[in-house]
Amino acid sequence: MSMSDSFIHDLRQALGDDQLLVHEQIEPRYKTDWSKASVCEPVAVVRPRSTEAVSAALKVCHAHGHPVTVQGGMTGLVGASQANDGDVVMSLEFLNGVQEIDATASCMTVWAGTPLQLVQEAAQAAGLYFAVDLGARGSCQVGGNIATNAGGNRVIRYGMMREQVLGLEVVLADGTIVTSLNKMLKNNAGYDVKQLFIGSEGTLGVITRAVLRLHAMPTETTTVLCALAHQDAMVSFLRRVRSMAGPSLLAFEVMWPDFFSFMTERVPGNVSPFERSDVMAVLLEVATGDAGLANDVLEGLLESALDAGELTDAAIAQSGKQADAFWRIRDSVSEFPLLFAPYASFDVSLPIQSVCEFVTTLKSQLAKDMACAQSLFFGHIGDSNLHIVVHVPGPRQTFPKDAIDAAVYELVKQYHGSVSAEHGIGTRKKPWLGYSRSPAEIEVMKVIKKALDPGQILNRGRVIDF
Amino acid sequence: MSMSDSFIHDLRQALGDDQLLVHEQIEPRYKTDWSKASVCEPVAVVRPRSTEAVSAALKVCHAHGHPVTVQGGMTGLVGASQANDGDVVMSLEFLNGVQEIDATASCMTVWAGTPLQLVQEAAQAAGLYFAVDLGARGSCQVGGNIATNAGGNRVIRYGMMREQVLGLEVVLADGTIVTSLNKMLKNNAGYDVKQLFIGSEGTLGVITRAVLRLHAMPTETTTVLCALAHQDAMVSFLRRVRSMAGPSLLAFEVMWPDFFSFMTERVPGNVSPFERSDVMAVLLEVATGDAGLANDVLEGLLESALDAGELTDAAIAQSGKQADAFWRIRDSVSEFPLLFAPYASFDVSLPIQSVCEFVTTLKSQLAKDMACAQSLFFGHIGDSNLHIVVHVPGPRQTFPKDAIDAAVYELVKQYHGSVSAEHGIGTRKKPWLGYSRSPAEIEVMKVIKKALDPGQILNRGRVIDF
Repeated sequence: MSMSDSFIHDLRQALGDDQLLVHEQIEPRYKTDWSKASVCEPVAVVRPRSTEAVSAALKVCHAHGHPVTVQGGMTGLVGASQANDGDVVMSLEFLNGVQEIDATASCMTVWAGTPLQLVQEAAQAAGLYFAVDLGARGSCQVGGNIATNAGGNRVIRYGMMREQVLGLEVVLADGTIVTSLNKMLKNNAGYDVKQLFIGSEGTLGVITRAVLRLHAMPTETTTVLCALAHQDAMVSFLRRVRSMAGPSLLAFEVMWPDFFSFMTERVPGNVSPFERSDVMAVLLEVATGDAGLANDVLEGLLESALDAGELTDAAIAQSGKQADAFWRIRDSVSEFPLLFAPYASFDVSLPIQSVCEFVTTLKSQLAKDMACAQSLFFGHIGDSNLHIVVHVPGPRQTFPKDAIDAAVYELVKQYHGSVSAEHGIGTRKKPWLGYSRSPAEIEVMKVIKKALDPGQILNRGRVIDF
Repeated sequence: MSMSDSFIHDLRQALGDDQLLVHEQIEPRYKTDWSKASVCEPVAVVRPRSTEAVSAALKVCHAHGHPVTVQGGMTGLVGASQANDGDVVMSLEFLNGVQEIDATASCMTVWAGTPLQLVQEAAQAAGLYFAVDLGARGSCQVGGNIATNAGGNRVIRYGMMREQVLGLEVVLADGTIVTSLNKMLKNNAGYDVKQLFIGSEGTLGVITRAVLRLHAMPTETTTVLCALAHQDAMVSFLRRVRSMAGPSLLAFEVMWPDFFSFMTERVPGNVSPFERSDVMAVLLEVATGDAGLANDVLEGLLESALDAGELTDAAIAQSGKQADAFWRIRDSVSEFPLLFAPYASFDVSLPIQSVCEFVTTLKSQLAKDMACAQSLFFGHIGDSNLHIVVHVPGPRQTFPKDAIDAAVYELVKQYHGSVSAEHGIGTRKKPWLGYSRSPAEIEVMKVIKKALDPGQILNRGRVIDF
């Protein structure tokens, strides 16, 4: 028996036939992520149906020093779940379902492979609210959301995925099961071990179950599309809204003029409520009604911003349909492949004070370096999170991806920003990690990785290298 | 030169005379914490005036394998900052002050030795709000609050200290400075290294600076003292309040009847607003006014709870003075030493669903085991946090501390609670850590400790042993 045969034999012994796929049993979907950027040949796919099976599989891989790529919904944007040739792929798809909803403790125990949307719906059915939401909700899995510390549109009010995780069950690289399904908001009994696994992109352990915090359902919300008088008014308007709306502020999404006119002029169905389409727009969502901002207070807020010269116009959505239309302007980014290809997109963070200067500088620099470059800027600015899309007309083959990457990330470094606000590092952003983290910080990451996965079998080559 | 002489010589070389105290220079305050439970003789006290000085001191201690006890405001309740004989004490008192307030990013950069109250006041002066508050605010230091992941009264709305920390500067055991003064709400560039140091009680690194998140100032709040119809109504009343008040709920403090009658009958100046004093009371604080619950909605909430038989009475504070009087009933725990000694006090967490059963069971068990035991129960029940105070009449010498500890923690274990909600483990709760954490969880803690402080010089013997 070859070494490889004996490895598969051990996996089969540990898992049985129904949790193991080899050779032609391995469907294409395990070989590439949604980007289809590359295709690999895993040696096997394991699909555990229990935490114990995850443990059994990892014990075998650990004993053989065999690398494992963990796969959730395959919706990640940085290549973290794209396996390498010869890897074992571990798919969490069968660890799927809500185990318990505890309405008294306001939490839910859920298997890692459960799609985010199912978690949201289960919370809603119990009269509660799960606060993380993102476009891939139908496909992404909650275990992946935790492993990547997902963000989305509600961070300014509810925090990222990290803030939603009360308890976690994780299997370490050597197969040790660490069950810590805490339901309590306060628990200072020793180190908060779960924090290690949140946002470490599957490199320190495989998440199998989680206890998620649920919130009261937001009763009523109001959506407002605002036209800023000029770019620099953004910061003072944000401060005004924060201070007047407090916890009622649910979203503060900014669209720079190029983005706003692209979305309202080029995407069919989108319409600007303003006279002009080249405005810098802010999409506000505010909790109103009984437990939020009174309507007259919201109107007063907008009037004071108009009076102060921060806004030139503001449109309060008069129906759910109109609110959806406003949000669609912000969310039509799925049209980029059709209307803006080839393009490069970025997910960075910047100290709020520097965002506008960063945008101006980058825009002029790209225009200088690449004559026909078009760049669009938008993002969750209340959370410091800026998205950038850069298009250069021409065939995909000559698209200057590397030059654009370098321009963006050099400037992020200069402004002390983060090369990843919410998407993570994976393999694709690894070259730039040192732009946002110091050698000492990266050294601590390595120390932790070495301590928890000395054989480097879990998601090898993601986030950091040795 | 003896080994000890050479150690002090090296410390003096590294720090100079003004940052080092030895022998009779060492004042008593470095030798014991507020509990005065024990007194030690440190070999030296270092009082660094810069991050570099913290690093220089730790390099010497690390080279000599010399244990260091880190001291903040000395207000901890579990002995974590109580040095052992021969330790170097590192006091952060000179690393004191607010470095910057960034009102746009809603954050503050602050030295670790800054008293909590100063942080709160600086935020307020900038029109913002720092959300962690606790009784020791005048003495405790924000570095200690971070190291212990402090909780307090506002956790249900704002989370614990962990949720307030955006960035951190830490010096590792070997003197490596890890500066990560992130100001951005979203930053997924690699592992979130700071999480390791929050709540690890100074055992993994010395916190020198932090970037703290600030919130909008709560504009108006209303305090309500409610009388529950019976113990079991607590859970449904909590659900009702959570669901109707949403983010406007700032505090949900429960006082069991024995506690409430003790505080209103025995503490001078406290008065029950209800006909009887042996009620189970809930102290609600709710954001009202422009950005919170409308007054008629709050009244409707209370009426619906009265109609549903959850409450028998509710008193809405009609003035700031009356609100303070309601809070004083909850906060008169400082009277225990005078009125209830000798006593043992506890800070545990329990799944909310089990809290009432736990209280009933523990109360009857204590009464059975110790004829004259009196136990009082209260806490931040919205956060699962229960405080317990047990008094047995008689001299301090015969006070059955060990038996009470055993009874409480055995029951916490049985109900899957936490032996520490917010105070931490330190040395005093170490024997009970295994009641709330599994061997696998504790093993991960050890792996992390070994990886980051292999010589075990930082707060040796706290939280976990090897």
